[in-house]
Order: sequence, then C-alpha cells, then structure tokens
Amino acid sequence: MAEVEDLLDDNDVVGLLRWLDEHRPHEIADEIARASPVQAVLLFRLLPKDEALTVFEELDPPDQQHVLSGLRDQSFRELVEAMHPDDRVRLLGEAPAKFAQRVLAGLSHRERVTTAALLGYPEGSVGRSMSPEPVAVRYGRTAGHALEAVREKGLEAETVYTLPVVDDQRCFVGTVSLRDLVLSAPDRPVAEFVDDGAPRVRATDDAEAAARLMSDANLVDLTVVDSEDRVVGLLTIDDAVDLIEEADTEDIARQAAATPWSGHYMSVSVVALARSRIIWLLLLIVAATLTVNVLQFFEATLAQVTALALFIPLLVGTGGNVGAQAATAAVRALAVGEVRVGDVPRVAWRECRVGLVLGVALGAVGLVVGGLLVDLPVAVTVAASLVLVCAWAAMIGSTMPLLAKRVGVDPAVISAPLVTTLVDATGLIIYFLIARLVLGL
Amino acid sequence: MAEVEDLLDDNDVVGLLRWLDEHRPHEIADEIARASPVQAVLLFRLLPKDEALTVFEELDPPDQQHVLSGLRDQSFRELVEAMHPDDRVRLLGEAPAKFAQRVLAGLSHRERVTTAALLGYPEGSVGRSMSPEPVAVRYGRTAGHALEAVREKGLEAETVYTLPVVDDQRCFVGTVSLRDLVLSAPDRPVAEFVDDGAPRVRATDDAEAAARLMSDANLVDLTVVDSEDRVVGLLTIDDAVDLIEEADTEDIARQAAATPWSGHYMSVSVVALARSRIIWLLLLIVAATLTVNVLQFFEATLAQVTALALFIPLLVGTGGNVGAQAATAAVRALAVGEVRVGDVPRVAWRECRVGLVLGVALGAVGLVVGGLLVDLPVAVTVAASLVLVCAWAAMIGSTMPLLAKRVGVDPAVISAPLVTTLVDATGLIIYFLIARLVLGL
Repeated sequence: MAEVEDLLDDNDVVGLLRWLDEHRPHEIADEIARASPVQAVLLFRLLPKDEALTVFEELDPPDQQHVLSGLRDQSFRELVEAMHPDDRVRLLGEAPAKFAQRVLAGLSHRERVTTAALLGYPEGSVGRSMSPEPVAVRYGRTAGHALEAVREKGLEAETVYTLPVVDDQRCFVGTVSLRDLVLSAPDRPVAEFVDDGAPRVRATDDAEAAARLMSDANLVDLTVVDSEDRVVGLLTIDDAVDLIEEADTEDIARQAAATPWSGHYMSVSVVALARSRIIWLLLLIVAATLTVNVLQFFEATLAQVTALALFIPLLVGTGGNVGAQAATAAVRALAVGEVRVGDVPRVAWRECRVGLVLGVALGAVGLVVGGLLVDLPVAVTVAASLVLVCAWAAMIGSTMPLLAKRVGVDPAVISAPLVTTLVDATGLIIYFLIARLVLGL
Repeated sequence: MAEVEDLLDDNDVVGLLRWLDEHRPHEIADEIARASPVQAVLLFRLLPKDEALTVFEELDPPDQQHVLSGLRDQSFRELVEAMHPDDRVRLLGEAPAKFAQRVLAGLSHRERVTTAALLGYPEGSVGRSMSPEPVAVRYGRTAGHALEAVREKGLEAETVYTLPVVDDQRCFVGTVSLRDLVLSAPDRPVAEFVDDGAPRVRATDDAEAAARLMSDANLVDLTVVDSEDRVVGLLTIDDAVDLIEEADTEDIARQAAATPWSGHYMSVSVVALARSRIIWLLLLIVAATLTVNVLQFFEATLAQVTALALFIPLLVGTGGNVGAQAATAAVRALAVGEVRVGDVPRVAWRECRVGLVLGVALGAVGLVVGGLLVDLPVAVTVAASLVLVCAWAAMIGSTMPLLAKRVGVDPAVISAPLVTTLVDATGLIIYFLIARLVLGL
C-alpha cells in the first residue's frame, strides 16, 4: 500500500495511472485523503472523468475542499454540478463562506435551487442528508404504471428500491418496494402491496436518530416528509451507514473527553488535534485540583502515615476504571436505544450491585498486595476503601449519562475521564475517612 | 413507553393487543428484550403469526433463546423453520448444545442442510452472516432473461437488488443491479451493464471487514464466493449495519477495558456484567501495584516533602486523560481504516507534538494552581512534569494500538484504562526525578 506514496514521490505518472486503473473508488479516495494537499490534487487530476465524481463523493468534506481548490474553474464547476445534492450540501455545510459562494455561483439554476432548499434545513437534520425528488407512486395506480414511472424518472433518482406511495395531495400513504413491483403481475393495483405502516421522518428530525431507526427496522430507504406530510425525499442506507459511523466516531471521541474533529485522522493538523482535546483537559485539570484540596485537608493524616500515600494512584485508578466501564456501557446503551432516561433507578441499583461484586474481588487483591508491602492496618484500609469506591464509582458512572440526557445534555459528554476525575476526589475522601477509623487517628 | 410494562404487570391482554397492533416489529422486539423472561414469552405469544417471525428476527440471540424456550413444540418448530438461514445460524452460534440440537431436529431436511453448511464457516466469518442461494444471472443472457429469473426465484431470496453475474462454471464475473435491469430495454445483453470490478469476499473472510467494505464502497449487497470463486451467497446491507454496530459496541466496551457481552443491556444479568469487567480490572490492579513500588522507592523524598503527595492524583489523572484520548483516537482510526500498521513513526511524531502543545497549556495551569496552594519549587516541579508526562502519554497511547495490531492483537484491547495505568507508573518516575532535580534532594 506504501506503493502510491512512492509513486507520488517519484512523480511516476505511468505507474500512478496503472495503480488508479487497478483500484476501486473508495481505495483511491483513501489514498487522496492521506496524501499531502499538492499530491492529492495531482492524484485526483489523473483520474478519468467518469470515475472522478465517484472518488470525489467518497472524500470527507475537508479533503473535498483541498481537491476543489486545486482545480481549474471549468473542472471545478463540472464537478460540483454533477454531485448528488445531499453530498453537495454536506460539503457546503463545513466550508468557509467564500468557498461556498464559489460553489453556488458555478451551479445551474436547477441545482442551485435544490441545494438552497436542502441548506435551509438545520445542521444535523434529516433534510441535510436526504436525496431530494424521489420517484413517488400514486396510490390508485397499478404495478405496471409504477414500473413505468421508475423507468421514466429512475435514471435521475439516487434510489428506486423504495418508492413512497402518495395520495392526490402528494401526502404520504406508505411505501412499495421495487422488488414487489417486479414480482407482481403488471395489472395489480399498488394498493395491494403498499406497506401503510412504513415509518417516515420529518426533514427537520435528527439525522442520527433516523439512521438508527433504519438500522433497527432494516430499511433500505426511509421516506422523508415535510410538516404537512408531503414526501420531500428519501434517506438512503449508504448515507445512514455514514451517519451511524460518524456518530459512533463522535461518541468514541467524546468518551475520551475529546471534541470530535472533522476529516481524516492522518490529514488533520496537529493544532486541530490539540484543539479537539484541550478544552476538556483544562476543565478536568481544574476539577482535579479538588483532589489537591482533599489531600491538603487530610495532610496531617498523610504526614503521620506516609504509607497511605503509596496506595493513592492504585485506589483512584481502580475507582476510575470501574466508573469508566459503567459510564461507557451506559452511554452506548443509550446510543443504541437499549436504555431510556426513565431507567435511572433500575440502572443505579443494578450497577451498584455490579460494583460491589467487583469491589469485593478487587479488595481481596488489595488486601494481599497491601499485606505484602506494608503493615496490616493500612492494607485493611485499602481493601475496605476499594469495596466502597467500586460500588460508588459504578453507580455514579452509570447514572450520570442518563441524568445528562434528562436535562438535555448529550450523554456522550459524560466521558470516562470526567467520571474518573469526579470519582478520584470522592474516592480519596472515602479512603481517608476509613483510614482514620481503622488506624484510630 | 412505560405503558407496556404497566399493561404486562396488569395482565391486560386487550390493552396489550392494542399496543402490539399500534407498534412496529422493532419496537415490539425492544420491549420483549426489556421484559422479564416470563413476560417476554407472554408478549410474544400475543403476536399475530405473520408478525411473530419479523419480531423474532429483530431480537438478540439470548432473547431469542428465552422466547423459544417458552413456546410449545409446534410453534417452536414453525418459527425456526421460517427463519432466514443467516439469522438461524446467528442464534445457534451462541446457544448451548442441547438447545441447538432441539432446533436442528425440528428443521426440514432442506433447511437443515443449508444451516449446517453455514455453521461450517468459522465464527466471525462472512459465511455465518450471508444469505445463501442468491438469484444469479448468466453472463450471456439479456436483461429480459435476468428479470425473468428474478420473478421466478425472487420470492425465496432475501434480496434481489444486486444480482451476481456468473459464467458457465458458476464463477463470479461481476454484478448487475435490479435498477439497471428495470431501466434497460429487455433485449440488451447483461454483459453491457455488468460491473466487472464489483468487489466480492470469501465466505471465510472476516465479517466486520466485509461490512466496513460495504460501507466504504456504498454497496447494498456484497457477493460472497468460495475458494474457487463460485458464488455462494450475498451479504446484505442490513446485516452489515448490524455487524458494524456490534463491532462498534465491542470496541467501545474494550476501550473501557470490559470484554463485550452478548445481549441487551437491560436484560443481561448482574453477574454477566461483572464478569465482562472483572478480568481487566484484576489485570489493571496488579499492574497498578507498580505505582506502589515506584512510590515506595521514592518514599524518602515523599516523607521529606509531603506537599509532593498532594499533586499525585492530579498528575497521574491528567497524564492518563491525555493517553486515553490518544489511544482512543488511534483505535478508532484503525477501525475505520484511516491509519495502518506501517504508520507508527508518523503517528508517534504527530502525537508527541500534540502532547507537547497540550502539556505546555496544562503545565501553565499546574504552575498557577501549585503556586497558589503550595510553594514555588513544588509548583515548578508539577508544571515541568505535566509537560513531559503529556508528551509521553500521547506518544505511548497512540502507538500502542498500532503495535498491538502489528503483533496480531486486537488494537481495541489497548484500552484507555490500560494506557492510563501504564502512564501512571512512568509518570510518577518522571515526577519524582524532576522533584529531586528542582528541590535539590
């Protein structure tokens, strides 16, 4: 795979052309994303015209901007004109105003109108990701009529596998699948095999939720309607998969207390990476000063029995790990819809018991390690603290994401590091209170 | 949504029937997964026969087992006979032997042969998730012939949107889409619109990789072949989406140092949850005794300047957070294919610089906090340690997943807690060495 990089470094055009010929659009797009901006444009320009569009649509918006900025006006216009409207909107959504103007100015009137309509929907809504102008079928028609409509308008539509069925006001009635139409006798009415319980979403609905609905209900396309239930588009499964992957990537980044960044990991700049992480780190280090305060409060105890200090990283580390596990499980269960906001008491009770089980096992290890390295009273303190801290950490870690969602905050911001930091301070209080009790200080 | 739980508690059959009538299969499946085993069976039995299968196929295998175990022999047999072969294999893959025997014994000969063939593929392979017996088209035929084949065999096939094109030996040549067939004139040869570069995978290939390929290449179906390139099945996009969601859930669990569990978060037992977490916690607490050793080694320094102890949780916590962010980013980039094993030096150098940027910012905070709470030399020690620890943590955290993959270990096991624990011990060594230098001990 290092091959392309070598070919680019050597400016070996013949070799590059052969390589391009042998690889699929998504593989080529991946190499373009990894290359430097100059080499990315070089590689892209070598593509045959009919393949260039497919490769281009596989790129992330920041890489699309790089490539476009390196093209001459004529190629630039042809490319953005040929893009699917939803892909174009995705590109424009993240672009600087000047760039967006250049794109819009180059479009034909028809495409500009379609694009502007999609841009009118809020960011993160279904409207931004849908394919507009689907092939719709009137409720009163026959299968033969419907197939005729597919043949007439199907070339321009992004998908024809699911056809929304509409009444005379273009309002949504249900869907038919192309499969049913093909398998049916041509003279049978569409009404016979319309799925009138097929779900639809509003164009202003949340795009991630719509994508998860498609995954749950095994849909290839999902009908999108406006506020008056008129069909305005279809969300296709390939876009839904991208939405789910993107949402998972964001959730994973948030779970590690980083804000998501846009674009390819290997092409994003060091500064952008640092920026995506610094805000949470600053918040967390300020929160961590709480641990300094707690330890200052117990400084006399600490000075009396220095051995207590030896177990601080082990204790707060373990508590943090248990809390992180619980929080991660809860965030994921919320994301895929297995847990709901109302489940707080049930989840808290379950996780508290899980934490106790874990705490007893880990406390036993703590007792042995402590007994070997220091004297027994400190070991007992460590073991007892582990039991309590684990139960506490599991309960806090699992319920915080649910409570966050209840007050309207994205549960994924309840990251493992945030839970860890909070558990650190409270865990230390538990530790020193038990120490005073056990050691009689 | 609490409605169903109330209806179940009240044994309100009329209310339940109305509720079932008003909801979609995937919503009903979700409620069954959340209910107790007894109530799950009650709810399932109330379903009309034609809907029962769809709901059943939406359940996770452990919940499917619960439901099946509550059915009478007749219904049991009818249900497993009607399942799609790939769903049946998924159920059997996780079931105890006795249960699996009961399922296989109830099948018709034909279904038993198909099921046994799929079960012959290794766990986690494409063969286990594919739909067997796709509608294939001969290369020499016309579009009209191909549509005829779809009409004949399409009712039994799970999908007809992508048709593998085969030669006389049933070997893979490419694919045609139902869309192209419908849009084309019936007398045009299939050869004209076959996509002969369409990717295919071996039945023994990794299922997650195949699913990610479908997502990258925007495929609705992916052809599956045997070792002699003969078409044996199709992987459909709805199964691919499930595979991706499952893989992401597993990666997320591993990122928090838990082993993935099977089934619905709300129906899995406390013991199973604890078991999924305890192994890593035990390993990590043993690794954490390293921090106790390090601190024991520096105990004299600690006894001389107790103030150093106050910043231990803040320092190791921050280092752990930076390491966790870097590790999480690297694991995700590997999963979605943005980073490759060969990228170690490039990633290490990038993340080292990211870590330095972060360390300088956090070190400044450390200096201020330290200056306010204790005397300046300790504050300087804390600040300098933060700079070095952050750079070190980012480098270690980002490269460890890549190195793990290189030696054949799942990179997702390089969890945030594992990185945190390792960074803790090394971070403490850095801290105390700097302390000795700055404080002149």
